[in-house]
Amino acid sequence: MTYADSLTGVHRAFLEDLFGKDGLSFDPAVLRVYSSDASNEKGDIFAVVRPKDTGQVREFMRWADAERVVVHPRGRGTSLAGGCVPTVPGIVVSMLGMDKLIDISSTDFVAEAEPGLCTAIFQAEVEKRGLMFPPDPASGKATSLGGNVCTCAGGLRAVKYGVTRDYVLGCEIVLPGGQLMKFGGRTQKDVVGLDLTRFVVGSEGTLGIVTKLILKLIPKPEASASVLVGYRSLEDALSSMVKVFAAGILPAAAEFIGETCMEILTRTGECPWPDEVKAMMLFQIDGSRETIGLENARLSRQLDDALWRMEGVGKEEEDRLWAFRRRISAASYVLGPDRMGGDMAVPRGKILPAVRRFEEIAAGNGKRLVAFGHAGDGNIHANLHYDASDPDDAARTAKTHHALDKAVLEFGGSISGEHGGGSLKDVGQQLGDGEHELMLRIRRLFDPNLILNPKKGY
Amino acid sequence: MTYADSLTGVHRAFLEDLFGKDGLSFDPAVLRVYSSDASNEKGDIFAVVRPKDTGQVREFMRWADAERVVVHPRGRGTSLAGGCVPTVPGIVVSMLGMDKLIDISSTDFVAEAEPGLCTAIFQAEVEKRGLMFPPDPASGKATSLGGNVCTCAGGLRAVKYGVTRDYVLGCEIVLPGGQLMKFGGRTQKDVVGLDLTRFVVGSEGTLGIVTKLILKLIPKPEASASVLVGYRSLEDALSSMVKVFAAGILPAAAEFIGETCMEILTRTGECPWPDEVKAMMLFQIDGSRETIGLENARLSRQLDDALWRMEGVGKEEEDRLWAFRRRISAASYVLGPDRMGGDMAVPRGKILPAVRRFEEIAAGNGKRLVAFGHAGDGNIHANLHYDASDPDDAARTAKTHHALDKAVLEFGGSISGEHGGGSLKDVGQQLGDGEHELMLRIRRLFDPNLILNPKKGY
Repeated sequence: MTYADSLTGVHRAFLEDLFGKDGLSFDPAVLRVYSSDASNEKGDIFAVVRPKDTGQVREFMRWADAERVVVHPRGRGTSLAGGCVPTVPGIVVSMLGMDKLIDISSTDFVAEAEPGLCTAIFQAEVEKRGLMFPPDPASGKATSLGGNVCTCAGGLRAVKYGVTRDYVLGCEIVLPGGQLMKFGGRTQKDVVGLDLTRFVVGSEGTLGIVTKLILKLIPKPEASASVLVGYRSLEDALSSMVKVFAAGILPAAAEFIGETCMEILTRTGECPWPDEVKAMMLFQIDGSRETIGLENARLSRQLDDALWRMEGVGKEEEDRLWAFRRRISAASYVLGPDRMGGDMAVPRGKILPAVRRFEEIAAGNGKRLVAFGHAGDGNIHANLHYDASDPDDAARTAKTHHALDKAVLEFGGSISGEHGGGSLKDVGQQLGDGEHELMLRIRRLFDPNLILNPKKGY
Repeated sequence: MTYADSLTGVHRAFLEDLFGKDGLSFDPAVLRVYSSDASNEKGDIFAVVRPKDTGQVREFMRWADAERVVVHPRGRGTSLAGGCVPTVPGIVVSMLGMDKLIDISSTDFVAEAEPGLCTAIFQAEVEKRGLMFPPDPASGKATSLGGNVCTCAGGLRAVKYGVTRDYVLGCEIVLPGGQLMKFGGRTQKDVVGLDLTRFVVGSEGTLGIVTKLILKLIPKPEASASVLVGYRSLEDALSSMVKVFAAGILPAAAEFIGETCMEILTRTGECPWPDEVKAMMLFQIDGSRETIGLENARLSRQLDDALWRMEGVGKEEEDRLWAFRRRISAASYVLGPDRMGGDMAVPRGKILPAVRRFEEIAAGNGKRLVAFGHAGDGNIHANLHYDASDPDDAARTAKTHHALDKAVLEFGGSISGEHGGGSLKDVGQQLGDGEHELMLRIRRLFDPNLILNPKKGY
């Protein structure tokens, strides 16, 4: 494609007229911020705009398509896959100016919101009304609803409650060219026509700019309990999950913490478990106040072979347990100041062989693998730490990182369970040629000139 | 489109060569069966074929596309929306010859199956292993998995567990032209590329012929309990559901039974409730053996204003309650030997005003509305009975039926929550022109010559 390679005076005048001073920046210092995301990759942009309403988005998209100006929509920039990194110079559209909570209905069990709304703020509002929006990406405090929808964010509770896709009932998107599309609605069920609502979920901003979301809510469970259990090895830890599921228990969360993570936790803070504990599982269950104690006892009975355990009933007590899980990501930097992260998924029963194979690959390149994640979903966070100022280390790390993506496919896995293809992942190695080609042809129906997020996603 | 308007000798020879005697029929008596479905509408066909494997489907689809022969894929023919009725003369492809259960994995929590497998047989096999496949369309004993996927079937448990879409991890489909496409896989999460797996769900056989399904399973809950509660009016009955949800209870099922249904039940069999009970709710909860009693008590406390109640713990006791709900559909024929059915969905809080409006419309045409359904999903079965041999009755019924679909849109609803557009519903009145056009353009990418289920779906 041939794209506009700079903005003309006429372009700038159009943008100033449409967005005004407050909704537009050409300031290099500002542009630097919007040229990167949590992946730390960088790109080049001409401007950042901040629409206030759907009308502005439509007008902008009409213009951008006609002028072949590349558009990079952006929420809160927390992508670890470079999903917000400008791959081709263009304009970043920050959706944070559209962050209205339009409606929460405790009779319809539906909320309507603009995409720029922070997920954590939304969830707090929902919970005040005794309702719950289950998708809870670990970075939910920082993310926007629009970003969650565009990546089909998962999270800790996905094993019981599913992912973002399962809670989107409708959406509005603006196509390149400015056309507004309305998919789905406020009903819990709707099987009229093709399911374009869910098709937008996980499409990584390649089909249109999301301007409104209609979300499904459920009653908030009254109570929850967690148990952290320590084992001699990851083998034993993961076996405990098999027993929990076999007992007919569907936990709200089932996280695993691998051996290297345990070493990191021990090196970087006080840890209450004995030395022989080398791997852990963290389970959470939720339900009613009256039965949570019994359910917790039932869960604990499946875990009677644990070397060590710590239990918590209710948020405050549970937070003490979850603090260990939350500490892993930051503490891992003890292995190196820079990180390449994986978020691959494998069939649930293949976690152990996959982690062992990843460790072997890492060791073969003189690297250590930090593996933890959502065991209940077979979703492995496989991180590698290195020192970017050491070219040899960086090269070995990159080599390992790419080899892991190849290896995950041998287990019938996916190279991304949560973060998406973004600008960093080579999704072509996973997708069949015919399937990939079909996706690109559909993309062109939405975006004939490929101005939206080019070279990203798939 | 111009389609083949009959089969030539060469065509017949090709089909005989591909499917052999056992996999093919031109017999008018057989063709009559395959020219209709549970909607009782009829079409014309040239032949019915019954592939045994994906290779045969591919070869057939390559040929059908080249020869412009219209193809009507079919599962067990239970569509109430005319989804299996041949709208344009062509060949019916019965998928019942591909009914293998390929794999059930209690470590991956995944099953693989061919589309012709009967849903009830599949569920029984899954449950033997302590697992559950939650989608349970009321007609599940008769349906095939492929049919459930193609309509995104819902069912009684959808309020807690979601619909078929939420349990499809991957699928294989054969496109017109014979290309085999593989979407998704055995992982619980996969956000690589556009979500074509879920796009196939509910596409009503307009994108390709499904030849394999990869399905998500969950642990089977140990126990369940149900309560049937009677109220003075539908207003009071539906209010009880609001209280249940407000207490943080997410029931596995929440069905409503309207006033006309109650009258029908009373007229057609023994009923244990007193005369002043004019509407009912039927709730089910599930969980562990240890806590089901407590959970049941908690549910019952929310229902303390009921005039009458009947409780059941465990399948056998519960079946006595569910028998009343199951009896409605057949018993309703007391109002007339023929039926036009609706399966509309409204936002959950709009059930009462929608039913009242539907009743008013029916009364205005001298008809009575039979309303019951999945209250937890806002999914209303709104049936009209009539005598097809009475032209005036038939005309008033059809007029009412169409007016209901219009009315549901006024409530922000959908004209189909479960059955799909099929060949009977005018989905154009619900879909925006731009959105509808986009769906048709995507359809053409999969099926350029529109040989698959023409004039059906959307």
